[in-house]
Amino acid sequence: MSSRRYRVGIVGASGFVGGELLRILLNHPNAEVTVATSREYKGEYVYRVHPHLRGKTMLRFVEPDIDKIANNCDIVFLAVPHGQSVNLTPKLLEVGLTVIDLSADFRLKDPEAYVKWYDWEKPHPYPDLLQKAVYGLPEIHREELRNAKLVAVPGCMATAGILSLLPLVKHKIIEFEKIVIDAKIGSSGAGAHAPKLDLHSFRTYVVRPYEVAEHRHIAEIEQELSLVAGEPVKVAFTPHAVDIVRGILATSHSWARGQVTEQMLWKAFRETYGNEPFIRIARDKAGLHRYPDVKYVIGSNYCDVGFEIDTRLGRIITFAAIDNLMKGAAGQAVQCFNIVIGVDERTGLDLTPIFPV
Amino acid sequence: MSSRRYRVGIVGASGFVGGELLRILLNHPNAEVTVATSREYKGEYVYRVHPHLRGKTMLRFVEPDIDKIANNCDIVFLAVPHGQSVNLTPKLLEVGLTVIDLSADFRLKDPEAYVKWYDWEKPHPYPDLLQKAVYGLPEIHREELRNAKLVAVPGCMATAGILSLLPLVKHKIIEFEKIVIDAKIGSSGAGAHAPKLDLHSFRTYVVRPYEVAEHRHIAEIEQELSLVAGEPVKVAFTPHAVDIVRGILATSHSWARGQVTEQMLWKAFRETYGNEPFIRIARDKAGLHRYPDVKYVIGSNYCDVGFEIDTRLGRIITFAAIDNLMKGAAGQAVQCFNIVIGVDERTGLDLTPIFPV
Amino acid sequence: MSSRRYRVGIVGASGFVGGELLRILLNHPNAEVTVATSREYKGEYVYRVHPHLRGKTMLRFVEPDIDKIANNCDIVFLAVPHGQSVNLTPKLLEVGLTVIDLSADFRLKDPEAYVKWYDWEKPHPYPDLLQKAVYGLPEIHREELRNAKLVAVPGCMATAGILSLLPLVKHKIIEFEKIVIDAKIGSSGAGAHAPKLDLHSFRTYVVRPYEVAEHRHIAEIEQELSLVAGEPVKVAFTPHAVDIVRGILATSHSWARGQVTEQMLWKAFRETYGNEPFIRIARDKAGLHRYPDVKYVIGSNYCDVGFEIDTRLGRIITFAAIDNLMKGAAGQAVQCFNIVIGVDERTGLDLTPIFPV
Amino acid sequence: MSSRRYRVGIVGASGFVGGELLRILLNHPNAEVTVATSREYKGEYVYRVHPHLRGKTMLRFVEPDIDKIANNCDIVFLAVPHGQSVNLTPKLLEVGLTVIDLSADFRLKDPEAYVKWYDWEKPHPYPDLLQKAVYGLPEIHREELRNAKLVAVPGCMATAGILSLLPLVKHKIIEFEKIVIDAKIGSSGAGAHAPKLDLHSFRTYVVRPYEVAEHRHIAEIEQELSLVAGEPVKVAFTPHAVDIVRGILATSHSWARGQVTEQMLWKAFRETYGNEPFIRIARDKAGLHRYPDVKYVIGSNYCDVGFEIDTRLGRIITFAAIDNLMKGAAGQAVQCFNIVIGVDERTGLDLTPIFPV
Repeated sequence: MSSRRYRVGIVGASGFVGGELLRILLNHPNAEVTVATSREYKGEYVYRVHPHLRGKTMLRFVEPDIDKIANNCDIVFLAVPHGQSVNLTPKLLEVGLTVIDLSADFRLKDPEAYVKWYDWEKPHPYPDLLQKAVYGLPEIHREELRNAKLVAVPGCMATAGILSLLPLVKHKIIEFEKIVIDAKIGSSGAGAHAPKLDLHSFRTYVVRPYEVAEHRHIAEIEQELSLVAGEPVKVAFTPHAVDIVRGILATSHSWARGQVTEQMLWKAFRETYGNEPFIRIARDKAGLHRYPDVKYVIGSNYCDVGFEIDTRLGRIITFAAIDNLMKGAAGQAVQCFNIVIGVDERTGLDLTPIFPV
Repeated sequence: MSSRRYRVGIVGASGFVGGELLRILLNHPNAEVTVATSREYKGEYVYRVHPHLRGKTMLRFVEPDIDKIANNCDIVFLAVPHGQSVNLTPKLLEVGLTVIDLSADFRLKDPEAYVKWYDWEKPHPYPDLLQKAVYGLPEIHREELRNAKLVAVPGCMATAGILSLLPLVKHKIIEFEKIVIDAKIGSSGAGAHAPKLDLHSFRTYVVRPYEVAEHRHIAEIEQELSLVAGEPVKVAFTPHAVDIVRGILATSHSWARGQVTEQMLWKAFRETYGNEPFIRIARDKAGLHRYPDVKYVIGSNYCDVGFEIDTRLGRIITFAAIDNLMKGAAGQAVQCFNIVIGVDERTGLDLTPIFPV
Repeated sequence: MSSRRYRVGIVGASGFVGGELLRILLNHPNAEVTVATSREYKGEYVYRVHPHLRGKTMLRFVEPDIDKIANNCDIVFLAVPHGQSVNLTPKLLEVGLTVIDLSADFRLKDPEAYVKWYDWEKPHPYPDLLQKAVYGLPEIHREELRNAKLVAVPGCMATAGILSLLPLVKHKIIEFEKIVIDAKIGSSGAGAHAPKLDLHSFRTYVVRPYEVAEHRHIAEIEQELSLVAGEPVKVAFTPHAVDIVRGILATSHSWARGQVTEQMLWKAFRETYGNEPFIRIARDKAGLHRYPDVKYVIGSNYCDVGFEIDTRLGRIITFAAIDNLMKGAAGQAVQCFNIVIGVDERTGLDLTPIFPV
Repeated sequence: MSSRRYRVGIVGASGFVGGELLRILLNHPNAEVTVATSREYKGEYVYRVHPHLRGKTMLRFVEPDIDKIANNCDIVFLAVPHGQSVNLTPKLLEVGLTVIDLSADFRLKDPEAYVKWYDWEKPHPYPDLLQKAVYGLPEIHREELRNAKLVAVPGCMATAGILSLLPLVKHKIIEFEKIVIDAKIGSSGAGAHAPKLDLHSFRTYVVRPYEVAEHRHIAEIEQELSLVAGEPVKVAFTPHAVDIVRGILATSHSWARGQVTEQMLWKAFRETYGNEPFIRIARDKAGLHRYPDVKYVIGSNYCDVGFEIDTRLGRIITFAAIDNLMKGAAGQAVQCFNIVIGVDERTGLDLTPIFPV
């Protein structure tokens, strides 16, 4: 395995995802974080914004600057708001950098989809880059990720949604209509901004539905599941804010094609995920812990998946639990980074969940 | 309006539902709590177990005793575990008491259903009482509740589930198959017992699915919705423990029969709930608070309902948010009590939600 | 008792304290809320900002306007930021209104204290009004409150701090130096603004000390305790943000003058608080609930107080638990209002705590 | 540095501390966990009790058995309730094992202290072992820990209490009387048992004082601080349960001997902690994060310390924030283990805190 150290830049390093990238990459044997950008905090020590990193780094934030990044980095992680990467990425690619983009700007293959789902005024200006970009879900695109130059890291809820359904779709166990994904997500998914409703007093003690019919991650989920199925798959998706900071549980309700047995589901899940380093099949008929729960994955890159059959109604219930900042963002980005640079996928990610938290 | 004071007994008064009944009834102008039973705490002051009631009452717990109850009460609330009411209720009725039962023992009309859903060894021993019992959901059974002798107060998740779907079922707006109810519930629903998984360290920071395919409240929900529809309605129901103490949000995903407009839904919701004292239609296209949220009903008997149309897929999403100890248990029981004794339904229940909490 | 209804205005009605005043006053038999002001939300229905009030009122916010208030109100509650009341109050008094001010602008008797503790550039411009204002802690100033024209409602942490120590100071049981008050407070104390550190992701899972040496409420605490003692009392005060929304626990550590027995403390607490409608002495040598806890007062105007003797070291530990939005703000303001207008102090405040929450 | 792998046993491996030892030691290059005992779960896979460890180990719990441990281990961690280690440890030492005891049974040097603080009927039966045992706080006893055969790992609140005061006591900056430690602690400190008050519904939303005058950890704190001071130091200690799972903040209030400047405190803290691998001095006059907060250390072995001077009163306020399961238990035990076996103290403990959580 390569022991080369890549010079790594993080653009947008002062947010939660930036902090999580730093937490992982500062301990990663193949990475040296050379640049961490933040317009708001330029000149400031990183640990003064990310207090957990005190004692881990004396890095300071700098303003984002293409030249500086080009001169000091081999690979760049973009943890910027949607709509910024589309301008930045072409320039970074042009100077020969590899880009791992955590925004949505290169996730969708269809240029028109950005008009529909992201309210862009015009179709995506770089349709060629959309084709070149690899959707960074290793469980589907591992081979294409090797030596990719542009990785579009999936959305957090898209990751959970897709992984909850992948075995069922791949093995065509379920009907491809009337699939419901009911998701529950913590507050860190909204980022370190400060809208009123994200205040502690407002955001505590909630079970609050939002964007209940047309959340943007639907576009990714349908794109990827349709790709796997070889035919259109539609998903009805509704997220809920719940009173945790990290974590997503996707609960998928789908309807079986004909008779489905537990053995069929075990087989489909094992075939799909048996060799995946970060997917754990969490299912137990007895004992304390029978299904995935966000509580069991916090701080780690694991996605715990599970299933149950509602024999009475022919429904299949599947679950995927992730830490949205890890497998839903920074952890998955580093997993992709590892594949891109050709090291063991688990490098720097051998982080056991914190329990109980 | 009657100013008569009824002597009221609470059997099983040391649990959360018992405490909530006391909180309401100690301030109720038509009730005088004469008996509060608890085997575990007999002889103890009520306020030593329910510390919020300090200064509100000098009542002491007594052992449950039919004679004592018969001599001191007109109406009895049963807040006992499932399987105990079935023995107690016939005796209480026999001595002429009115029984408001918060357990499941008289909710289902079909005696066999207790074998199927509650694992009883034999069918319900009092099929006549099952017929006589009124399912205590005023939004469906208000008329029958007047002068009822035995009220079976609905389960907490059944209440939320039914009320989220009632307008759609009543107006036959949706298909009656492939209805999904995805529920999220706080820890107080499990009662004041102490199984390991309900410990704070285990129960905090969870989104934990449980009884995902065959939760017992399905039986009630299907019974009542089928009654309203005049034909069988099946519901796929999956609850999740979330990190709050009080509160249930039921999110119902159903599929429209033909084209559905927002106006149709407003009409159905208004016709069903427009005169209901405890149902609030919470729906807004703008502003901070667009859908029901458990956060807005805590401490009150309100059920906030809301809806949205997923025009892309023909899905209808409806919500019902309740405080499980109030509209999901004690509040609903007192609402029934008010109807039974013929006073304004809101008596003693004019409790504004605590916000923010 | 008077059944007169006073026309009541709330200036600054869109914040948490404003919402809590509305929750209480909309149900108060002697109050009719005629004006609720908010610059930010003028024209908006109150319930769209305070979602718990949906169905309770069709009032709309208006801009603050002296004439409008003068024409429509008898009494005004000011729930405005510090520094605004000092300008508004003289005008409101001039037009004959009674003012119940929840800000700090009239709490301190010494005009210079505003320079020292509140960073005002000049001493308080209305020293005469400072003398006229009554510090709205009924446990100390009940008699002066009757017929007061200007009430300065205490700060939330001042209320808890003072009430935890009042019996010890009044009865000179403790030394008046080296008194430590270590306070813990929920997020609603910071108001409905949105600084970054009050975001859910940042504010959850904290035990965060702040303003650890010179918090402003020290000025009030020392003023009032010195008044009671008849000699200077100094307090060392340190607050901590903890992961709750409502609630303050003040833990006071002080040192006994000579030998102190439990009986002496019971006597001091009973003499001080025995007739107080909103103080509960919560102390138990056995049982589940031995000392005050914020959990037992949420939603109510109660202050639970308790004590313990550290015989080994001669330390006395006392506690006061309040809901900061109730006894720490809106509830206390209404308690003062009741005294001012001459009705039973508990009117509109007979709100049992919500438990468990 | 040694690359030897020690065979390690964990007695009492099913609790929270056991789980945390496993989380660390399963990734520790110098440890191989060969035995994990649990009477309750013997025969069960470890990951079925510790769901975060799924995929990390196929170890099963075994019953505690001296022979089995002797044959399979070099070093044993005891995570057993107080009173069990005193019986087990002599036997383990006798068969030549090194014991790292996380219980209180060998922390106190004075055999009589167990009668006084732990309600033992008789003095400690092994006064010789008490002398031989090394109190496992590396910041005080690092040298004695090298090659120790019996390590008594400090109590969680003792660790925070001592570390908050160590620089002040060492440098005799403060008076040694009227020192107050006011501590706040999460629910995991109580362990994975299930008493009623530790239920989620009861333990959420609390600020609950307990054992307010005579908590057992006082004995350790006074023993160690007196040792450092060379004269008796007394501490007044009061803990509070707060609504988090992990974490302790100790806030110490003490009184300066004469004039104290910030520079003096910086010097004392730097001299005491400047070379400590797990102590971070967290103090900032500006910025978002000015003092220690439990939120910044979760999942790590860090102890963040900080200070402030109350110049008005001559008080010094110091803080220590730890994760009670890490620096307060398992992390500290492994830190001691590293010293005992002669490897870098940070081995296996290079775990960055999870933030935000």
